[in-house]
Amino acid sequence: MSDEPVKYVLPESEIPTHWVNLMPDLPGDPSPPLNPGTGEPAGPDDLTPIFPMGLIQQEVATDPEVEIPDEVRDVYKRWRPSPLFRARRLERALDTPAHIYYKYEGGSPAGSHKPNSAVPQAYENKKAGVRRLATETGAGQWGSALALACSLFDLDCVVYMVGASYDQKPYRRSMMETWGATVHRSPSDTTEAGRTHVEHQSGSLGIAISEAVEVAAGDSETNYALGSVLNHVCMHQTVIGQEAMRQMEMAGEEPDIVIGCVGGGSNFAGLSFPFVRRRLRGESEARFLAAEPAACPTLTRGVYRYDFGDTAGMTPLLAMYTLGHEFVPPPIHAGGLRYHGDAPIVSGLVRAGLIDAVAYRQNETFEAAVRFARTEGILPAPEPAHAIRAVIAEAESARESGEERVILFGLCGHGHFDMSAYDAYLSGTLEDIEFSEAEMEAALERLPEAPALA
Amino acid sequence: MSDEPVKYVLPESEIPTHWVNLMPDLPGDPSPPLNPGTGEPAGPDDLTPIFPMGLIQQEVATDPEVEIPDEVRDVYKRWRPSPLFRARRLERALDTPAHIYYKYEGGSPAGSHKPNSAVPQAYENKKAGVRRLATETGAGQWGSALALACSLFDLDCVVYMVGASYDQKPYRRSMMETWGATVHRSPSDTTEAGRTHVEHQSGSLGIAISEAVEVAAGDSETNYALGSVLNHVCMHQTVIGQEAMRQMEMAGEEPDIVIGCVGGGSNFAGLSFPFVRRRLRGESEARFLAAEPAACPTLTRGVYRYDFGDTAGMTPLLAMYTLGHEFVPPPIHAGGLRYHGDAPIVSGLVRAGLIDAVAYRQNETFEAAVRFARTEGILPAPEPAHAIRAVIAEAESARESGEERVILFGLCGHGHFDMSAYDAYLSGTLEDIEFSEAEMEAALERLPEAPALA
Repeated sequence: MSDEPVKYVLPESEIPTHWVNLMPDLPGDPSPPLNPGTGEPAGPDDLTPIFPMGLIQQEVATDPEVEIPDEVRDVYKRWRPSPLFRARRLERALDTPAHIYYKYEGGSPAGSHKPNSAVPQAYENKKAGVRRLATETGAGQWGSALALACSLFDLDCVVYMVGASYDQKPYRRSMMETWGATVHRSPSDTTEAGRTHVEHQSGSLGIAISEAVEVAAGDSETNYALGSVLNHVCMHQTVIGQEAMRQMEMAGEEPDIVIGCVGGGSNFAGLSFPFVRRRLRGESEARFLAAEPAACPTLTRGVYRYDFGDTAGMTPLLAMYTLGHEFVPPPIHAGGLRYHGDAPIVSGLVRAGLIDAVAYRQNETFEAAVRFARTEGILPAPEPAHAIRAVIAEAESARESGEERVILFGLCGHGHFDMSAYDAYLSGTLEDIEFSEAEMEAALERLPEAPALA
Repeated sequence: MSDEPVKYVLPESEIPTHWVNLMPDLPGDPSPPLNPGTGEPAGPDDLTPIFPMGLIQQEVATDPEVEIPDEVRDVYKRWRPSPLFRARRLERALDTPAHIYYKYEGGSPAGSHKPNSAVPQAYENKKAGVRRLATETGAGQWGSALALACSLFDLDCVVYMVGASYDQKPYRRSMMETWGATVHRSPSDTTEAGRTHVEHQSGSLGIAISEAVEVAAGDSETNYALGSVLNHVCMHQTVIGQEAMRQMEMAGEEPDIVIGCVGGGSNFAGLSFPFVRRRLRGESEARFLAAEPAACPTLTRGVYRYDFGDTAGMTPLLAMYTLGHEFVPPPIHAGGLRYHGDAPIVSGLVRAGLIDAVAYRQNETFEAAVRFARTEGILPAPEPAHAIRAVIAEAESARESGEERVILFGLCGHGHFDMSAYDAYLSGTLEDIEFSEAEMEAALERLPEAPALA
């Protein structure tokens, strides 16, 4: 074999023992979630109807690290540590002096990073005596991860799947059902929130969240599980970045830039937060770049503002970049990125100038995805294809400046369930669906009353 | 974490340096391939129109081990060594004293074991100056593996995909196209063999092979690549069994029985041959069990006889169990197992009583697959679901006899492209398609003239 490593693998003993909680590192005063009724900071009591205390404690934790329960690490062992790859073939194809690394999460049974949070969420709910979990899913990655985790912890699972994805990705539904979950097309007629938004037939993550929250709030044996946005979800995903940090050490390099796609933000948080902590502590100069779809450009076009996490306005108000909770993103194939807001921590770091953001259209992201598949072999999901598009831009700029830049990005899932999108791209029928400025402006006019943010 | 390992992982340095060639170990006189025109043993010259000399040398190799080229090991590094799992959750669900291990090949970029042979085949053809490879594919696993390998070695690729699978698994086609291959539905109108068998609209591997061989034989810059059956393909897959042997040593156990599904036989060969060698050398008492579909029961219902490898009768005659080269298997979802014959080496070992065979129907295999997915998490392809069905039977018999039996089986691919089949099973519409005895008998009447086998 050549002595050029392409893959960095850690032993099972290196699965992190703790999650990274970035809360205590954040610059400035925190902007806590607010109870929409009182305008006061939402406390644990606002969350107990839908979350178990174990997760609420993680959500509001102030320790820099939170221990991972043994039962969760035992399940992580099934696919973790995940591999880090050096994209040598892509580097050569781009003729760039940049060194490109990617952390690949597609090897989990659900094919994405989502089980990293689904497993601890199912575990904490099981421990609390809950019988069933309700959730939403966009492209189906979170829903299938939760269905998997529920089957491993013997919980029932009901999933509200965004209509556009339900139609585009029928096999994700079958996957959830194979793991024993019940799947509804959202908006559905099983909830008030669904019946109210029946005119948005393509659905949105915001509507699907409202449906799942409504089901959980109305049944004492059912809790809700969210696949992104919240602090505890971002925290669960930091196993990715911690492993990547060890693997970059094996490679003898430090990333100059960390790139990930952002929908709700948990994938981006998971890879970047351990590196962001280093930067905040003055131990690195790394840059951070969030790649999002031009059809749902929350970080590049949204406002930084308190808003609801769901469309029906059932959640606490979150401090975040938002296009307005009533904004319904167009039905792009990267269903996991069709969310009107972003994780508060990620939003705060963008606001503070620590994370940059860039938006790309469907065709240019699929062009990047096909280029990646044909050089590196792995066929990426449409969501991380946004990150790949940004990586190619960085690598090309490194070529122009002659810089040996070290790029690390998150390849958070494979695209085996997204072949209809590839089909559309390859046959020239994929649309660069336009972002509707008018719809965003209308949605921004319907933002809830809340204190302004700095 | 608990100290019960569920996964055994090898470092990159443990990727095998050699393939296992079982030929010199086989009992009795060899039954070589025959030239159908002369009835004489087919020599390398019979193969040069469609194979490069590097692969022909591997096909007829008599050394017990054949070195793996560095360029091939460099590509193997992308997903090898593959993990070995202990199925502790399945064991508990079955309440069995058996210890169940599985070697998982679904982590390759194509989602199956097939790239283990596609890569060395593409490499040897590239080295020989070939411009394009033509092949057949059933469920799409071999075709996508070859498309991947061709993209990595910069070769053109044309794939004849069995009609039934082309219709059932459109996304496998998109996957091949994403890697740059051209895909035809077989029987197609692009070849004489396809036009002759146009009445078999569901197609078969035998017809698709004829089409691909015809294309390769008619174009000096195009070679043919076969995904199973031949000695060199079985040999390439032995990286699986060699790694599994090391991993079983890590677990401190020896398999009492090795189980795999059999279509053409390369998956079964890959896992079992290193263990078969031990048995033939008197170093183990392990049993071997081949699981096949009741709808295409070559090993359990076929005759041991010289027959063509393809439907049109273009290949040398192979000594194997066959249902007759004109037998067209019904369109079951395990497309990779729809082949009228079996690898000559596997067939010879079945004939010699070293390998047992068992056949299962679609519904019982999917029942086993769902049970596996809900306990172990990984969602199996329909092909290895046959092996899982056999494993459950073995584990249940171990429970009845109170034996601590050690079972090793091959989980040769994930089922992410087979969700329509799961859908049919879960909704109760999956058919136990019948094997047609009349069709087999008719096909057996049309076997070619050839010497009888012992």
